[in-house]
Amino acid sequence: MNLTVAEIASKLGLPFEGDGTAVVRGLASVREAEAGEISFIANPRYAADAAATRATVLLVSKDWNKPSSAAALIRVDDPDKAFALVGQWFAPPPPAWPVGVHPTAVVAPDAQIGRDVVIGPQCVIEPGVVIGDRSVLVAQCYLGHGVTIGCDTKLYPQVSLRERVQIGDRCILHNGTVVGSDGFGYSVDARGVRTKIPQLGIVVIGNDVEIGANVTIDRARFGKTRIGNGVKIDNLVQIAHNVVIGEHAVLVAQVGVAGSAEIGHHAIIAGQVGVAGHIVVGPGAVIGAQAGVHKDVPARAMLIGSPAVPREEFARMTVHWTKLGDMKQRIIALEKRLEALTPKSTSP
Amino acid sequence: MNLTVAEIASKLGLPFEGDGTAVVRGLASVREAEAGEISFIANPRYAADAAATRATVLLVSKDWNKPSSAAALIRVDDPDKAFALVGQWFAPPPPAWPVGVHPTAVVAPDAQIGRDVVIGPQCVIEPGVVIGDRSVLVAQCYLGHGVTIGCDTKLYPQVSLRERVQIGDRCILHNGTVVGSDGFGYSVDARGVRTKIPQLGIVVIGNDVEIGANVTIDRARFGKTRIGNGVKIDNLVQIAHNVVIGEHAVLVAQVGVAGSAEIGHHAIIAGQVGVAGHIVVGPGAVIGAQAGVHKDVPARAMLIGSPAVPREEFARMTVHWTKLGDMKQRIIALEKRLEALTPKSTSP
Amino acid sequence: MNLTVAEIASKLGLPFEGDGTAVVRGLASVREAEAGEISFIANPRYAADAAATRATVLLVSKDWNKPSSAAALIRVDDPDKAFALVGQWFAPPPPAWPVGVHPTAVVAPDAQIGRDVVIGPQCVIEPGVVIGDRSVLVAQCYLGHGVTIGCDTKLYPQVSLRERVQIGDRCILHNGTVVGSDGFGYSVDARGVRTKIPQLGIVVIGNDVEIGANVTIDRARFGKTRIGNGVKIDNLVQIAHNVVIGEHAVLVAQVGVAGSAEIGHHAIIAGQVGVAGHIVVGPGAVIGAQAGVHKDVPARAMLIGSPAVPREEFARMTVHWTKLGDMKQRIIALEKRLEALTPKSTSP
Repeated sequence: MNLTVAEIASKLGLPFEGDGTAVVRGLASVREAEAGEISFIANPRYAADAAATRATVLLVSKDWNKPSSAAALIRVDDPDKAFALVGQWFAPPPPAWPVGVHPTAVVAPDAQIGRDVVIGPQCVIEPGVVIGDRSVLVAQCYLGHGVTIGCDTKLYPQVSLRERVQIGDRCILHNGTVVGSDGFGYSVDARGVRTKIPQLGIVVIGNDVEIGANVTIDRARFGKTRIGNGVKIDNLVQIAHNVVIGEHAVLVAQVGVAGSAEIGHHAIIAGQVGVAGHIVVGPGAVIGAQAGVHKDVPARAMLIGSPAVPREEFARMTVHWTKLGDMKQRIIALEKRLEALTPKSTSP
Repeated sequence: MNLTVAEIASKLGLPFEGDGTAVVRGLASVREAEAGEISFIANPRYAADAAATRATVLLVSKDWNKPSSAAALIRVDDPDKAFALVGQWFAPPPPAWPVGVHPTAVVAPDAQIGRDVVIGPQCVIEPGVVIGDRSVLVAQCYLGHGVTIGCDTKLYPQVSLRERVQIGDRCILHNGTVVGSDGFGYSVDARGVRTKIPQLGIVVIGNDVEIGANVTIDRARFGKTRIGNGVKIDNLVQIAHNVVIGEHAVLVAQVGVAGSAEIGHHAIIAGQVGVAGHIVVGPGAVIGAQAGVHKDVPARAMLIGSPAVPREEFARMTVHWTKLGDMKQRIIALEKRLEALTPKSTSP
Repeated sequence: MNLTVAEIASKLGLPFEGDGTAVVRGLASVREAEAGEISFIANPRYAADAAATRATVLLVSKDWNKPSSAAALIRVDDPDKAFALVGQWFAPPPPAWPVGVHPTAVVAPDAQIGRDVVIGPQCVIEPGVVIGDRSVLVAQCYLGHGVTIGCDTKLYPQVSLRERVQIGDRCILHNGTVVGSDGFGYSVDARGVRTKIPQLGIVVIGNDVEIGANVTIDRARFGKTRIGNGVKIDNLVQIAHNVVIGEHAVLVAQVGVAGSAEIGHHAIIAGQVGVAGHIVVGPGAVIGAQAGVHKDVPARAMLIGSPAVPREEFARMTVHWTKLGDMKQRIIALEKRLEALTPKSTSP
């Protein structure tokens, strides 16, 4: 799609500064943009790049006052948000897949398939599956016995849902993600030999949940591993059996949540965090990257470190760490000065 | 399946307390249970929940003396173990797959397939593969050239075994797991350009091994990456080339073991631990979550931290960390007091 | 293949010591080798094993002077490199796949397939895909709309490339890897509810890149996530949207790189490291295992720890950590001695 700067500003209902006739054909980051592309400055970190950009037009904040090499500017309340909108005018249309069951898919005769559903090539649908209207299985997905999927949910290729998993409406599951694999549970005998404890439960995922690529979510030992409405899970996250993730919580990439832990609603768990088993993380808590959570976390607490401590305490600790050599030197100096002050005793 | 409390107790060979006629139709955790469900209390952490449970009957320990809102109790030696048994009476039967080769599977003519084997839809079996009796490939699995699988082994969908991988009897591999990918080995020239070192070896997995979902186990550079009998590996674990995992060792989710490391038999490696290359972790050692193991670990040692240290030392260190501010204040106070005590010298 | 010790030495253009008529049929590590196998000693750590090896012949360094139980020795400049060469004489030939499109593959009519390409069983090729000469898709791969792949690139089974991803020449992608999944980006409203920000960009991967198994690389929010020429990425690595990885950089297993971070050319990021969003890691920097990088890293710096600090500083810190108890005792002793020295004031 081609639009002039003036047309873009008009669609946004905003004025522009500079050359309104310049034509925009695409979008890019401020550093990568070429002539004919629109970009934006949201993070002050990149402000200096505005002076050297080859972009034709920049979306900037209302109070922007830095130099820019772009042919035009459009001032907006929130450049990040405005760019997300404008970006869709220039992006190629997202891929679409033909409605219906691809002839290479293997679908159990008793599966209940809603209206306008896509079941792409080489999907496998076991007996007892129910799929809601307009849901899309792009290709090569596996749906085990008795799986249910709501409406308008999208499964990218090679998503694997084990038996009796339940997924709500408007969810997105990215490639290679596994839901409902067995929990990691064994009894152990006196010789240290482990016997598998049957994992009889399921996984229940609410509505509007997005799950990244190559994520693993284990079924409950009994009952349900539960992922609440609106939860967002990034790539390569591990959710163990019987975990409960509250509504609108966020789990960033490579997080691991051990068995029966509970993550409160609206909590944010940053990348590579580990949460121990049976722990309760309170609603709205924020856990910093790579933290190790071994104790219950109060609501809205902000923790970091392994073992995790309140953020301010961690900041103090890490400052102290860098000064331990200095502390030791001061102790040695004190010992010497005190030695010099102390009356010498004559040895016997 | 429906059973009365009296019938459950009778099958366990134990007495019951309360209403023996109450009917049980399913099972759940003590917090999630509804009327008509059986639950149990094994972890004292959940004892308080017994007073408020809606479960019809609880399995409790012999010396249980807390209040319970359940209609009946059954006292058992080990509530956890008893529940695992009872759970199987109420769980839906696990899915079964029809014996034989699905017409959509692509199987090399020379593959040797044992008796009563399941080769599900869209599996790919390359030349030279050998599969033992009663093994199951649920769907969409890939078995490379010359792979051998023992008897009674189950591969969930989308398991991928590269050429010449060997797997024993009674193993379980969960969805998306990759065994036999190339090890990460390169030679590097003076310009920092890397050339791939051929990874010529294989992976050999013993009997009774369970491997979680989306795990990666690399083939040896030469010789064998070896996983011993009875080893249990959780989801998203990484095992590099030439690693040796001893019998009955346990690797929890997201552990990474670098090249040529050896994990002793019966060792337990908790979640997100990293073990450096060429390290030997002794038999029965226990490595705490998120630890970083950079040195050999003696048998039965218990380590934690990054870098990993003995557990008691880590506990002391983390206590000290929180008191570093206090230590610094005490040093400053000492310096001031000593200053006050020290005779002033007249400057020259 | 069978070769005598004399034949092996001759092919290497080097003399041998010991029994030149001994026959070699295979290769193994020095500990695992049996009679009839060749092995090598490169790492001094394994030197002691030479005295007990059952190998028929060992490749050793020119100045080797330790006892060996092998029937013969060949002295070489670089045993590791020589063994890589010799290994290929004895390894079974790597698997090969028949050129052409397997009848079970689903290939869009407009796909442009180069010469001598392999498209294995059950691959799915969406419209607009371009594949260069001699590239191999082993089996069960998914190539989304408009994906382009260069020449001589190999995709192992179950690799998934989302729409418009671009991959260069001579790349290797291992099983289960996902390229082009949506970046993890949301806007959040006052109630803490997240709305997906469209991820409109792509992923561009250069030439000679190798990517391990079950890796995830997200597409850019707009523009490009870029992986430079010669980059090597190990298993289970996470690369977020808009990340840029410079040429010949190395990312070891389970590394996570957050959104818009830049990794400089020739940088080495060891296992389980986390790099925060928008961080710049300078060219040639080396980040130690499990580090957490929260600030920009200068070129060629060597960092470790979480938060990451220069390697020498980390070494000092960890030494101090183990002596905190001692420091505290010395402070207490100083306080006592000072107390004894201080004149007692009479209380009022």
